[in-house]
Amino acid sequence: MAVYTEVSDTELEAFLAEYDIGDADALKGVAEGVENSNYLLTTSRGQYFLTLYEKRVDPNDLPFFLGLLDHLAARGINCPQPIHGRDGKAYRPLAGRPAAITTFLHGLSPRRIEVRHCAPVGEALAGLHLAGQDFALRRPNALSVAGWRPLFDGARRHIDNALAAELQAELDFFEASWPAGLPSGVIHADLFSDNVFFLHDKLSGLIDFYFACNDSFAYDVSVCLNAWCFEPDRAFNATKARALLQGYCRVRPLSDRERELLPLLARGSALRFLMTRLYDWVHTPADALVKRKDPQEYLARLRFHRAAATIADYGL
Amino acid sequence: MAVYTEVSDTELEAFLAEYDIGDADALKGVAEGVENSNYLLTTSRGQYFLTLYEKRVDPNDLPFFLGLLDHLAARGINCPQPIHGRDGKAYRPLAGRPAAITTFLHGLSPRRIEVRHCAPVGEALAGLHLAGQDFALRRPNALSVAGWRPLFDGARRHIDNALAAELQAELDFFEASWPAGLPSGVIHADLFSDNVFFLHDKLSGLIDFYFACNDSFAYDVSVCLNAWCFEPDRAFNATKARALLQGYCRVRPLSDRERELLPLLARGSALRFLMTRLYDWVHTPADALVKRKDPQEYLARLRFHRAAATIADYGL
Repeated sequence: MAVYTEVSDTELEAFLAEYDIGDADALKGVAEGVENSNYLLTTSRGQYFLTLYEKRVDPNDLPFFLGLLDHLAARGINCPQPIHGRDGKAYRPLAGRPAAITTFLHGLSPRRIEVRHCAPVGEALAGLHLAGQDFALRRPNALSVAGWRPLFDGARRHIDNALAAELQAELDFFEASWPAGLPSGVIHADLFSDNVFFLHDKLSGLIDFYFACNDSFAYDVSVCLNAWCFEPDRAFNATKARALLQGYCRVRPLSDRERELLPLLARGSALRFLMTRLYDWVHTPADALVKRKDPQEYLARLRFHRAAATIADYGL
Repeated sequence: MAVYTEVSDTELEAFLAEYDIGDADALKGVAEGVENSNYLLTTSRGQYFLTLYEKRVDPNDLPFFLGLLDHLAARGINCPQPIHGRDGKAYRPLAGRPAAITTFLHGLSPRRIEVRHCAPVGEALAGLHLAGQDFALRRPNALSVAGWRPLFDGARRHIDNALAAELQAELDFFEASWPAGLPSGVIHADLFSDNVFFLHDKLSGLIDFYFACNDSFAYDVSVCLNAWCFEPDRAFNATKARALLQGYCRVRPLSDRERELLPLLARGSALRFLMTRLYDWVHTPADALVKRKDPQEYLARLRFHRAAATIADYGL
């Protein structure tokens, strides 16, 4: 939870003069998002979301991120839609940061994931994959297998030897055998429950596309298995996984090869989140504004997937 | 900036069932306020503010705080107005905390205080004092002179000897000579710029009444002199003070005795904020979610007021 960059009323007024959405009635810093500064902006026309991109977001990626949201919204995906200024631009400087206004999405993230949430998430993920297929820009996945070892190296000296050996073996394994040639396109890559809204028991929106990139669709499915199908006590819930996978397949059927590789991909995506959490755990100063997330739960997930043999272990 | 207590969608649904303001469309934790957890709540009927009272607020004070907002709103003061449930109650438990919904106030706090802000602040403060005069409940000012020494004692061992001697002398002085019998009533007691909203160059609202109490009106004026009339370089700005005092006097003229005592009260209120900041500075853990505020700027204010002779030193 954080607002890193403060916006003065005079800066906001000058910024909004470039848009056609009325004058600012209120601006509230939002206590969510760990990467950027987010504000809920109320104007005489309605509610909007204002994001100032902080140092973890490369400004060169903004045409991809914001163009993707334009592209997806035009294809009926309920995602934040960038508001373009009178000059046609979707972002411009505010308080020394690149900043963008998007539509405000209604809905609440489920705090406790239930089985009923999982099929809609699978369906929405597949819908996203199909809608993104003809998006022209490309962005490689910086947090795919090649990105994991630098994170490990950066955290290595803080890890006990047994765990380090286990992770080292995982890295060696994946660097030698990460699958190629799977059906690919734009993936969300971070579709955790805080990035999905529900309203009146229906999925009402997907947010936070700032890890979106080009990678295999099945990898994105495997991220969701890790994000949605484990209980707080770290136990795998096959009922949730089956609902999620069935939901996905109703919209975009998984190929035989995708099904076959799903346990391996899930093990890989568990390692990816384990690596970033480990790195952040070690490098987040004790007085930081953001809460550190426990890496241990992803170690448990990794071990579950390593023991899984086929997609049948995921309820399908 | 902080949200201390998370609210689940199911908890919120049950809570809102007690009210007649529609269903929740969105709930965003707000990154402001250091005492309570604040959420911007959007329902099918509009925007509201949801506050969960954290441990610094005594639940026994809630009838005073929320009753005061009802009272003031009924008298035309632009402050958050409590929404009462179907049972008539203005607060009830949510996620283990007492919680209240209020109307959402439009406006932006000035990030940089200008002279044009000061007369409206003075006028609004006087309007508040008059509107609160017939409010039936009472709440003593826990942070008046009797509350300062315990704060000092709690921070003493972290303060160098010269400063400790200076503060000790101030406490001795005020404990012996704090003025009594001034015109009194409900005061805001914390009317800093982040608690005042402006919209289209007009003062549009006052918020955060959780220090409100019964004390002398002139003391509240002196808090505003400290809050609004010093520059970031700590220099006193007599133009701002004159505008603030003239604005106040247009709505509620200050008596001769109030004018005479204003430098003393301003010195006292500078000491009050110096004491709480010093205490928080010493006791806020380094990894806290809230930013610590520098006590030094209130030492500079205290010394300014000690050197002031009459209200003429404040531009009046």
